[in-house]
Amino acid sequence: MSGDVGLRDAVAVIGVGETEYSKRSGQSPVALAVEASLAAAEDAGIDIRDVDGFLPYASGITTEDMMANLSLRQVTFAPTIRMGGASAVAGLLYAALALRAGLASYILLLRARNGSSGPRVGDRRSTGAGEEFKEDFELPYGLNTPGQRYALMCRHHMHRYGTTREQLGAVALAHRAHANANPTALMYERTLTMEQYLTARPIAEPYHLFDCCLESDGGAAVILTTPDRARDARRPSVLVGGVAEGHPQSADSLLGRDDFLEIGLTTAASRAWAMAGLGPSDMDAAMVYDCFTFQTIQQLEEAGFCPRGEGGAFVEDGAIGPGGRFPVNTHGGLLSQAHILGLNHVVEATRQLRGECGDRQLARCDAVAVTGWGDLGDGALAILHR
Amino acid sequence: MSGDVGLRDAVAVIGVGETEYSKRSGQSPVALAVEASLAAAEDAGIDIRDVDGFLPYASGITTEDMMANLSLRQVTFAPTIRMGGASAVAGLLYAALALRAGLASYILLLRARNGSSGPRVGDRRSTGAGEEFKEDFELPYGLNTPGQRYALMCRHHMHRYGTTREQLGAVALAHRAHANANPTALMYERTLTMEQYLTARPIAEPYHLFDCCLESDGGAAVILTTPDRARDARRPSVLVGGVAEGHPQSADSLLGRDDFLEIGLTTAASRAWAMAGLGPSDMDAAMVYDCFTFQTIQQLEEAGFCPRGEGGAFVEDGAIGPGGRFPVNTHGGLLSQAHILGLNHVVEATRQLRGECGDRQLARCDAVAVTGWGDLGDGALAILHR
Repeated sequence: MSGDVGLRDAVAVIGVGETEYSKRSGQSPVALAVEASLAAAEDAGIDIRDVDGFLPYASGITTEDMMANLSLRQVTFAPTIRMGGASAVAGLLYAALALRAGLASYILLLRARNGSSGPRVGDRRSTGAGEEFKEDFELPYGLNTPGQRYALMCRHHMHRYGTTREQLGAVALAHRAHANANPTALMYERTLTMEQYLTARPIAEPYHLFDCCLESDGGAAVILTTPDRARDARRPSVLVGGVAEGHPQSADSLLGRDDFLEIGLTTAASRAWAMAGLGPSDMDAAMVYDCFTFQTIQQLEEAGFCPRGEGGAFVEDGAIGPGGRFPVNTHGGLLSQAHILGLNHVVEATRQLRGECGDRQLARCDAVAVTGWGDLGDGALAILHR
Repeated sequence: MSGDVGLRDAVAVIGVGETEYSKRSGQSPVALAVEASLAAAEDAGIDIRDVDGFLPYASGITTEDMMANLSLRQVTFAPTIRMGGASAVAGLLYAALALRAGLASYILLLRARNGSSGPRVGDRRSTGAGEEFKEDFELPYGLNTPGQRYALMCRHHMHRYGTTREQLGAVALAHRAHANANPTALMYERTLTMEQYLTARPIAEPYHLFDCCLESDGGAAVILTTPDRARDARRPSVLVGGVAEGHPQSADSLLGRDDFLEIGLTTAASRAWAMAGLGPSDMDAAMVYDCFTFQTIQQLEEAGFCPRGEGGAFVEDGAIGPGGRFPVNTHGGLLSQAHILGLNHVVEATRQLRGECGDRQLARCDAVAVTGWGDLGDGALAILHR
């Protein structure tokens, strides 16, 4: 199957919106969703009621909620992409399909949650349909939370390639330094040193506190349309040059995975790069789904920014921090801005490409890679450019 | 937005497979899914491992399940269409998008459940994310199960248009008569008279026992590919001429719906007909998502087979039964074959178009309309033809 599937530049991002990110929103997820959506429509210069496509999150706000609460007139396209945290980026692929086929004109991609004040990930030990293997093989052995599962991949990489805790720390510190330049980040005013990183309390070895993403409340929204319609938008639009999704075998478990480090991104990357006609060396920055420090390293490897095994060295010495060789997650990411299921990464890429990032604006920003990661391996890569 | 979106005949149905339909399968849903999938691949003449696209059901078998249990090598397209019972038909739209764009080569559309021996619909009074209105406005008033909600639409139609219980009964009897000619139908050996229909125990007025679909165990699967690839398939392929989805306001509740009888199908229909370049009068039969008797009538109206309010007369006197003017659900449908979430309707349309239906084969069958209905109003229409 060719990577060039005729979807290059089929989608324009014309509006982005965010609520305040906090530990306690005091609002329902629907209210957060409405606020973010209206902000994105305002940013795009469209009437929110012109939205006729919607990309809901599997366990969040429904199409019906948005139709009712935003007074949408008609929705003609509304698939749920059940790829966990990869869904925000994979959503760009579905938008490309629908826009290219004329199935919808303005598509709303939305995430809103009270991930801090509401139900916490890992709270429930129950498993969903088709996850009986967890009941049988994981929960009885104490493998309950994402941190525990992701830590196993990290440990494997450390053992095999000599990746160190200090290299993981370099990821945490880079994200924190980015967040310290971003007033919307939860960690805007809180600095982090390597000593603090190394001495923080353990969560699931080798992960300690600062290896783990934040729990946060908030919402983000993105409005997508065709490049033709984007010409009328209020702001310069950003195009999706290439985008692809990938599913590894055993995406929701490490059991039965032939290659412990292969993820959906591993196979998605080459297709997304081919579609865009661009490669890693053409990127000015990357927004990487940083659920945990090592997973940032792993995705930089699997997306092709460095060979597998060399990610630890790639992130050392502030290379991915502010002013570094290759900035990653200039908003602070899930680790230090907020956990909005990766849609905040799409928002940040858009803002950087538009040159709206103030103190943290990259001097040069023509193209940005955005990755998504869901469950324990579903992945997506999008290449956004001006 | 034009209905002709360039997706006409983008999808070929090349394989269909079903398990036995029963009240107690004695197998897990995953095992049923595997059996149906392998049967569909055998029917199509492909290796199941060539499947690289998967259309899962929101609350069923996951992509990971199928990758693991069918040894799929790579899945590059796997959206969940969260439209309840409309998802099977809407899935044909997503297949069209992916196949036209080259995102996948062979797409598996699958449903498997133990709807009789496993969890029953309406068992749980709990509500999902974004369904707080049910907690507030429906459950406290006893509006708990699909039958109760759908009955309200039926009562409205009876009041407004004079639709009678005998007309609802005509739907039940037609389905049962079809099932009596279909050995795979749960009700194959059980006839139904109008007197039995009228005197059956009430479920949710005006619905009595035989107005309601079956609870059943079983699985069905369909393999979809491009018309080009379909030329190598084992059987004559069936094309999807047109397909569209629609979402009414307040899809999951009757509260706040301006038009009590408008459903997703109301807006989807004109787009699907335009895409196919065909209309209701070109159809030789229809497979209608018959969750309840009246909803069959309602969809015949909203899809354009007769004007709104005239559906009761349309179905009278065996008109939609075997040998009738316009056969509907020749397999027996959800009412008398099995409730496989409407995918059995796609299977039956395919088999009729291939001329494989034995005693129940239609004399002439060049084009068949298939509808889907989910939640309390999401809808889809597909036009399948030879």
